[in-house]
Amino acid sequence: MTAADQVSEFDRGIAVTARPGVPSVYDAALDPGWRIGGGINGGLLLALVGNALRQELGAVNDHGDPFSMSAYYISAARPGPGEIRTEAVRRGRTFTTGAATLLQPDEQGAMVERLRVLASYGDLDAAKGEVRTSATPPELPPVEECISSELAPPDFLTEAALLQRLELRLDPACVGWALGKPSGEGRIQGWLRMADGREPDPLMLLFAVDALPPVTFDLGLFGWTPTLELTVHVRARPVPGWLRVVHSTRNLAGGLLEEDAEVWDASGRLVAQSRQLAVVPRPA
Amino acid sequence: MTAADQVSEFDRGIAVTARPGVPSVYDAALDPGWRIGGGINGGLLLALVGNALRQELGAVNDHGDPFSMSAYYISAARPGPGEIRTEAVRRGRTFTTGAATLLQPDEQGAMVERLRVLASYGDLDAAKGEVRTSATPPELPPVEECISSELAPPDFLTEAALLQRLELRLDPACVGWALGKPSGEGRIQGWLRMADGREPDPLMLLFAVDALPPVTFDLGLFGWTPTLELTVHVRARPVPGWLRVVHSTRNLAGGLLEEDAEVWDASGRLVAQSRQLAVVPRPA
Repeated sequence: MTAADQVSEFDRGIAVTARPGVPSVYDAALDPGWRIGGGINGGLLLALVGNALRQELGAVNDHGDPFSMSAYYISAARPGPGEIRTEAVRRGRTFTTGAATLLQPDEQGAMVERLRVLASYGDLDAAKGEVRTSATPPELPPVEECISSELAPPDFLTEAALLQRLELRLDPACVGWALGKPSGEGRIQGWLRMADGREPDPLMLLFAVDALPPVTFDLGLFGWTPTLELTVHVRARPVPGWLRVVHSTRNLAGGLLEEDAEVWDASGRLVAQSRQLAVVPRPA
Repeated sequence: MTAADQVSEFDRGIAVTARPGVPSVYDAALDPGWRIGGGINGGLLLALVGNALRQELGAVNDHGDPFSMSAYYISAARPGPGEIRTEAVRRGRTFTTGAATLLQPDEQGAMVERLRVLASYGDLDAAKGEVRTSATPPELPPVEECISSELAPPDFLTEAALLQRLELRLDPACVGWALGKPSGEGRIQGWLRMADGREPDPLMLLFAVDALPPVTFDLGLFGWTPTLELTVHVRARPVPGWLRVVHSTRNLAGGLLEEDAEVWDASGRLVAQSRQLAVVPRPA
């Protein structure tokens, strides 16, 4: 577990600093430890921008929790400095609408946009009210019977630095692809927590919806699956402990697919739902 | 059917005019015929803004089709003039990322923001590639055995002017709520087409995902269900004919619910998928 006097890897990864004298602009350093393939993981970027919006929007009405975030991915983010420009579009009584963009300097120093975000923030502790859910948590074997991502091929681990920061235990029923026998069902599910014991919170959920291997692996399609758009709804503040995450797709067509994610916390509550539209990898 | 020389009600409802001498700004007139409750229907607003983006983004690379749109609803739109400010965020080879905002003057003439949008545009005709879908179209009784919205209570029809422009035929299995016996399942489905025969296209799909009664009716929760956020993915260009639309929800909790919509065209293809996060109506 994280010592009390130690900042977790995730919190360092999403740290932002208000730029002195420039309202609503935050600086960040994108850490290579969150790489996947050639870029920084899209979920980590969402949590990073979500953290800047938390500071910008949360200062009024206690609206520091993301309820909904929609991100449009524009270009691949690289390790190095980043700048987040935020805007409080409208501060309401229950919700605040925000907007943000993440930029990085290119080799000539020109600022290039990486992703653009719209969001609704509020106070999850004020979101009381009944729970009438027909959704059911995924049935997973016990953690110790699931497959660790440490068993992934070494060259994949090199490309996916972020896996070393996670404890990811995949349902054996959904990892046939690692043995050359994808199920074809379009489903990957497993247990997830941070390797250093950092407990889940709403910002960590923004990351968790895009942390598993792409569901296309289960369709036998390997390779890079760039996200065009990802929207996540945070439905409750998670309790400490393991998360259960399910990725699924139902419609691969015309070179695109939707990937749905659900995140359940240790109390058995559905804490986040997301959908992304992604580009189907080309056959090798 | 619409005469060849006649512009359909829908096309008049989403018409925009580039403002002379002001790049990227479009003017519109919001028609009271698309009212629902106190405001203009959210799907119609999406199609209106989508039409402005079509003109702004479609001028380059034939990127005139919405693939994904995410809208954050800020305040209720009223009949009267509207202004749409658009931005081509990045023009790529396959996709163009766009942003837009819809504003209306308040009583003092100050411009008030109604909704803000991010979008990915491209060319649906270029989106070839295999279709591997495990999603199946809804099983609906024949159109003539479904329930017309003309049977809705007259005071509801008055509040829902837009229903008069639609032919909406709901599955009798999902309209128990109209007889005081909601199924509690969280599902409403039916056939949809425009009353004047205007055939579906990608812009009409942006409207279709938010045209049915709210799925909360099927949970016995009546009243206004304001949308915080709605994202729609247009997955194929629809063929002419009736659309089949399914609305469902799985997780009503903490005063919010997600509402998923699927739209299937007459050829049996899944042409649009959407999800919105909406506020649960308070018990009367």
